[in-house]
Amino acid sequence: MTNRFSLAVHGGAGTILRRQMTAEKETAYHAGIKLALEAGYAVLEKGGDAVDAVVEAVCALEDNPLFNAGRGAVFTADGKHEMDAAVMEGTNRHVGATAGICGPRNPVRVARLIMDQSEHVFFGADAAIKMARDAGLRFEEDDYFHTEVRWHALQETLKLRAEGKESDDPARRHGTVGAVACDANGKLAAATSTGGMTAKAPGRIGDSPVIGAGTFADNQTCAISATGHGEVFIRYCAAHEIAARMRHRGESLAVAADHIVMEDLGKNDGSGGLVAVDANGNVSMPMNSEGMYRGVVTQDGRFETFIYRDDEPHQG
Amino acid sequence: MTNRFSLAVHGGAGTILRRQMTAEKETAYHAGIKLALEAGYAVLEKGGDAVDAVVEAVCALEDNPLFNAGRGAVFTADGKHEMDAAVMEGTNRHVGATAGICGPRNPVRVARLIMDQSEHVFFGADAAIKMARDAGLRFEEDDYFHTEVRWHALQETLKLRAEGKESDDPARRHGTVGAVACDANGKLAAATSTGGMTAKAPGRIGDSPVIGAGTFADNQTCAISATGHGEVFIRYCAAHEIAARMRHRGESLAVAADHIVMEDLGKNDGSGGLVAVDANGNVSMPMNSEGMYRGVVTQDGRFETFIYRDDEPHQG
Repeated sequence: MTNRFSLAVHGGAGTILRRQMTAEKETAYHAGIKLALEAGYAVLEKGGDAVDAVVEAVCALEDNPLFNAGRGAVFTADGKHEMDAAVMEGTNRHVGATAGICGPRNPVRVARLIMDQSEHVFFGADAAIKMARDAGLRFEEDDYFHTEVRWHALQETLKLRAEGKESDDPARRHGTVGAVACDANGKLAAATSTGGMTAKAPGRIGDSPVIGAGTFADNQTCAISATGHGEVFIRYCAAHEIAARMRHRGESLAVAADHIVMEDLGKNDGSGGLVAVDANGNVSMPMNSEGMYRGVVTQDGRFETFIYRDDEPHQG
Repeated sequence: MTNRFSLAVHGGAGTILRRQMTAEKETAYHAGIKLALEAGYAVLEKGGDAVDAVVEAVCALEDNPLFNAGRGAVFTADGKHEMDAAVMEGTNRHVGATAGICGPRNPVRVARLIMDQSEHVFFGADAAIKMARDAGLRFEEDDYFHTEVRWHALQETLKLRAEGKESDDPARRHGTVGAVACDANGKLAAATSTGGMTAKAPGRIGDSPVIGAGTFADNQTCAISATGHGEVFIRYCAAHEIAARMRHRGESLAVAADHIVMEDLGKNDGSGGLVAVDANGNVSMPMNSEGMYRGVVTQDGRFETFIYRDDEPHQG
């Protein structure tokens, strides 16, 4: 039996205002999201595995300095990078997750490595980096992860903080990339990767590697990758709660995902959004923020990308 | 309005066989569990807060070398200690969690510190240790955490591993302590603390600090602290799934908790158990293992402790 396959990706949510955008930047974001969709679609259209699809899609976002993960990861308060990532598949609920790493070019591949090779599912930074080295994953020097726009954002944030203020732009404070897929066999997978929050306290672990909060997959219900104010996503076990509503209340993916994002998160300081897919290939991408870089591609090969909440689909 | 208050604690689950026990050891375990109950009860009977109660109860278990947390924490494969802990309260879902720490005498107090002082909820080891030092929490030298029985267990496990075997005693592989409470105001809280698994890979993070897996609290439903094969508890978001079944299916605490422990975990290699309390003070302590060191005390001041699954209540 062949399922309808589909893939959705996000590149972070936040206050994305049209007046602060340029046509050039919009084009670059749409192109970046589309590139990630293409990387995952190339796997799925060959009948490939959902895990491969989400990992390739997330790698494309990690390699793009526009997004807060991998190369474009934001800086911590002490000017370093600490990246979190997770991957989960929905057939056996296999999981790999890590927190606080810097060095591996693609943190999501480290999460994948943990999922594939370890009896454990979650590793701190030093152990994960050692596993990545031992496995021959690609590493990059510090300057690869140094982007001017992130460095500038750190300086701005530290300056505001010194003045006792906070940035009015939540997008500067958080951002994440992620992908969810349903493959032709109805297998679901989710992957999430992030640099965290600009000027975050060193050591802070967000929701991305917390299974059930920022990342979740179960073939019975859905695959979820979230982005936003991670602390609130952790408190509300956001990703798992969507699956729970589907299983226990019989809600559709769209109804369950909307409820969590608008009610549980939206009414409790949990700004952000998520991408979600169910085992029939239905996709949902709710947000309670002004925008979320996101896109979807289905079996028919139609690529659609979006920036603002009320955006028309952009078919690049 | 005054609720019926109650407190339950556990000191780890596993293959606890009567033939390997001595009367002396049983007495020591019962006494250790009772001491923890007394520490929490002292808070609750004065009308104190559920968070204070679970933290004090867990500290008593951390200070007791019999249990795998704090002083009695097991050794990692490279002969060190890496402790995880979390605390969560059910009124505002405030959370504090940390992973991989060694030094603070009471890891649960570090989790509490994070909950009370940080806008973030989850910190890696270095950051958490620094926060603990800055806050003046009590630290101990390495020899405090060196117990002969744990060192011997590590040597045994490493020897078996070198021979290509595994210990047949899951209790040697995992163990955790935890407490849940409902206070006189109907506020719920949960706390969990662990040294992890004997000979675990350095850097491995278990379910204890993963909110929704090994620790969870929400006044609407329940507070949960789990112990067992943590990887499976993470995959099944065990603690949050109990709350979800109560909210969405209207199940009682006992029915929901039993279902997770016997079905979701028990049938998927997730040996272990948990202690749970709801906002009416009802307590449930299901396990799918041979035993779990555990105890409960309610408003009437009756202390009951247990070791084996089919144990009669021990009133020390």
